[in-house]
Amino acid sequence: MACSEFDLIARYFNRIEHLRRDVQLGIGDDCALLTVAEKQLLAVSTDTLVAGIHFLPDIAPADLGRKALAVNLSDLAAMGADPAWLSLALTLPKVDEAWLKAFSDSLFEQLDYYGMQLIGGDTTRGPLSMTLTIQGLIPAGRALTRSGARIGDWIYVTGTLGDSAAGLAIIQGHLQVTDAQARDYLIGRHLWPQPRVLQGQALRDLASSAIDISDGLIADLRHVLKASECGARIDLDELPLSQMLSRHADAEQALYWGLTGGEDYELCFTVPEINRGALEVALSHLGADYTCIGQICPLSEGIKFYRHDQVVELAWKGYDHFSPGQGGFYG
Amino acid sequence: MACSEFDLIARYFNRIEHLRRDVQLGIGDDCALLTVAEKQLLAVSTDTLVAGIHFLPDIAPADLGRKALAVNLSDLAAMGADPAWLSLALTLPKVDEAWLKAFSDSLFEQLDYYGMQLIGGDTTRGPLSMTLTIQGLIPAGRALTRSGARIGDWIYVTGTLGDSAAGLAIIQGHLQVTDAQARDYLIGRHLWPQPRVLQGQALRDLASSAIDISDGLIADLRHVLKASECGARIDLDELPLSQMLSRHADAEQALYWGLTGGEDYELCFTVPEINRGALEVALSHLGADYTCIGQICPLSEGIKFYRHDQVVELAWKGYDHFSPGQGGFYG
Repeated sequence: MACSEFDLIARYFNRIEHLRRDVQLGIGDDCALLTVAEKQLLAVSTDTLVAGIHFLPDIAPADLGRKALAVNLSDLAAMGADPAWLSLALTLPKVDEAWLKAFSDSLFEQLDYYGMQLIGGDTTRGPLSMTLTIQGLIPAGRALTRSGARIGDWIYVTGTLGDSAAGLAIIQGHLQVTDAQARDYLIGRHLWPQPRVLQGQALRDLASSAIDISDGLIADLRHVLKASECGARIDLDELPLSQMLSRHADAEQALYWGLTGGEDYELCFTVPEINRGALEVALSHLGADYTCIGQICPLSEGIKFYRHDQVVELAWKGYDHFSPGQGGFYG
Repeated sequence: MACSEFDLIARYFNRIEHLRRDVQLGIGDDCALLTVAEKQLLAVSTDTLVAGIHFLPDIAPADLGRKALAVNLSDLAAMGADPAWLSLALTLPKVDEAWLKAFSDSLFEQLDYYGMQLIGGDTTRGPLSMTLTIQGLIPAGRALTRSGARIGDWIYVTGTLGDSAAGLAIIQGHLQVTDAQARDYLIGRHLWPQPRVLQGQALRDLASSAIDISDGLIADLRHVLKASECGARIDLDELPLSQMLSRHADAEQALYWGLTGGEDYELCFTVPEINRGALEVALSHLGADYTCIGQICPLSEGIKFYRHDQVVELAWKGYDHFSPGQGGFYG
């Protein structure tokens, strides 16, 4: 039997055991049909992952399935939304059943974990890439945006920064780490990022702005500053670097990764002074790590970095897929 | 100045003049935020278009922008939905400003025409392809699906079939048409398909099932039959072929294209006997062409083709992106 496109989609991606009540019609028709509860806003985000640019061409399919969803969930997390539905457009060079099984098993495991449902998609032949459109729900008026930061707000990040970049460097042979535990930790941070979904929801009424750190702290913070028309002071002494990173990379390299390394998928958010106590309680209840790394200042001050209370100059930029020399990050 | 990914997206795709009231937050944050009116269902569809498979690699960017949206609108049309929002994930081999301008101008012209808004997306570097996720709204309980056809229902199609395949054959040099008007018509049907949005909405309370014809009549009708657990009798004498196609291709070739040619983006739908009169009035009011081509019959009869009331055997299948020999349709 020829394995048609339709058979292929049906076999691996149409798993009827994964059902949400708000999905009236899932995979298998021209459109999915969905109900949105009253007073809920729909949050929608789209991300493309291309082999050789967003992931290593030889990544294990199970890792790819997990990471692809995590990358998209991270956008919902940054708005404080509850994950709901996923559309998956998958472009494959050939029909490889082992690959499809491992990829889809991993994807569905994550969808289940987050109570999500795959509602549709498309499968086509071509160079390996995928586009995920993720949808979430959020009570009206409670979404976190990039534009709400105000002068005096404190700047926080969740977790630690730069681990993912270090993990990639290990995989690519640019960083040698002999300690097996550190190696596994850093590579794991690169391959299996944890979207900060619960943290995002906890921030809903407390943070004034939020963004997820996909392109590196500096690049992503700049989006917040631009949208909020503010500047920022960042205290480099406070930058949260993991022990694994600090121990196994030299200090300048660790700092560089912490500020510009992509794919940490932590959240960067701002909090008015009045909400700081409540915020720290809320995140501590989740067992979530967070660090205050600076403060929002007037636009005219731009973005300034401090070390021991002295301004320091940095010439680094965030990772940009179209910047010369960086596009083939994974090539 | 280096043209960063973010600048690029902002310049061509963030056009603030296109605003819908139900878009609380459009392009420029981690997610778009959308409101869905009470008693409306959300209809969501995703389609990927890959250069060399879904469109000719040298297609004009303006044609591509128009066609990409049309292909997705056609899925909404098949459900009877009102188009609302689009997410566009665009993968480009390089930043070509002339290409981006022509593509985006054409896309926005069509978005405007349909009262839609681009709410987000992603731009990445890689082989030319794009994934569009389109969302529409439909009053609860009134969506058309593939599963509602019942024995005795009449099978209809809008417009004419096979023109797009003939147009592609002309472009590729497989069909010689000297008559300039016919040539332009057939090529136009391939390059600029018209999604049957108004027709789909008119069918809402009248048709028992509907699908859009993207992969060829037979292939798409089979989806309806499978979902509805029915068979069908198709009267080949009634198959609507344009005069341009009938005159400029031999009869067997025209029939083949009419039954299996992809990308006509007409609708195929079924109508209970009791609704036939109302349906024909509704479509005539729109000035829309439609033809009754057969009738739904029991599943056990499968799909049968008739000519002069005699069963004829056809061995053709619909176009399938993964079938051997057909995947590189545009290669």
